[in-house]
Amino acid sequence: MSKFVTFEGGEGCGKTTLLEGLKAYLNQHNVDYVATREPGGLKICEEIRNMVKYSTEEISKRAELLLFSASRAELVQNYILPNLQDGKLVLCDRFYDSSRVYQGYANGLSDEEVMNVTRFATNGLVPDITFYLDIDPKVAFERKGGKDKGDRIEQRDLSYHYMVREGYKKIAEKEDRFIIIDATLSKEQVLNEVLNKLRKEGIIE
Amino acid sequence: MSKFVTFEGGEGCGKTTLLEGLKAYLNQHNVDYVATREPGGLKICEEIRNMVKYSTEEISKRAELLLFSASRAELVQNYILPNLQDGKLVLCDRFYDSSRVYQGYANGLSDEEVMNVTRFATNGLVPDITFYLDIDPKVAFERKGGKDKGDRIEQRDLSYHYMVREGYKKIAEKEDRFIIIDATLSKEQVLNEVLNKLRKEGIIE
Repeated sequence: MSKFVTFEGGEGCGKTTLLEGLKAYLNQHNVDYVATREPGGLKICEEIRNMVKYSTEEISKRAELLLFSASRAELVQNYILPNLQDGKLVLCDRFYDSSRVYQGYANGLSDEEVMNVTRFATNGLVPDITFYLDIDPKVAFERKGGKDKGDRIEQRDLSYHYMVREGYKKIAEKEDRFIIIDATLSKEQVLNEVLNKLRKEGIIE
Repeated sequence: MSKFVTFEGGEGCGKTTLLEGLKAYLNQHNVDYVATREPGGLKICEEIRNMVKYSTEEISKRAELLLFSASRAELVQNYILPNLQDGKLVLCDRFYDSSRVYQGYANGLSDEEVMNVTRFATNGLVPDITFYLDIDPKVAFERKGGKDKGDRIEQRDLSYHYMVREGYKKIAEKEDRFIIIDATLSKEQVLNEVLNKLRKEGIIE
């Protein structure tokens, strides 16, 4: 079943836990799938990611989007499309909607600009379904024990994460492929909601 | 005189020699200018350039354009625009027209696609004048003594360079800012044509 399914959400929303549960289910039911995330193990993508994340120089917001888009273009061309062509279900932990909110909405680039670059990078590839795990950034932070990035999360940081959430909700309003999941539910409930949707769409039995 | 002037042309067209002569002239006449080229000494731009030029992995054509565009976005934001705002004449050895022909026309991306990404990267900045040094790729190669990249230039390589030339000519047909200069003229004649045009435009006296 050649379908492309992506997973989105803010920090601490539970994407990783959900994906572990989902992969266990798919393995158990012999579904022919692959799961990836940017940079997806491609060397050039890893180099780009390291550059964006660990550069000692400031990177302008336009360059940042273009770098993420370059990495994405490579992943689409050399991993996602070949696997879809092989008839596989492709799961991706974050895709271009992350850029729309992190580089776009919360960082001052318009959605039109971001999508313009994105359509070029992905050669028009659009996810069939996008699961968005919605949670109040403050609750997510507390759920993580409030320790991980701990005291460094200042007011500005939290307000940025609220912008991210607002950005996701704006996309969800516009695009039918967006399925909002309440990420405060138990991990079993979250997984079940995802499985139910995949069944309804005929992606799994 | 806040103006942005770029220089384009195929390999061996004489850009470097022209720019040396032009800079000597501008120094002598106390013109307030800066001259740059991508990557322009910015660290992140150099990292990107090294990645594109020396990657051991193949890079897809879309990712290649996006990487060059990221570098360009950074150069525009942190070097070209600040210098223009300071009222300087900014000279740039190659700019986005190089991408239109090298990544675009000669590499299978449409000009519309390339310009779409470019307008985002440059935030709409367009050169005031672009000097295109036109020469038959075979003549340019022979002029260099046919030795530098010597025998490695195969038929496919030469045909790629002919595509590059064709691409430049197509841009020249469409855009008034493009000034075609016959690069088979002597270096004094080439410099004089450039100086005459700059005088005519009131950029130098």
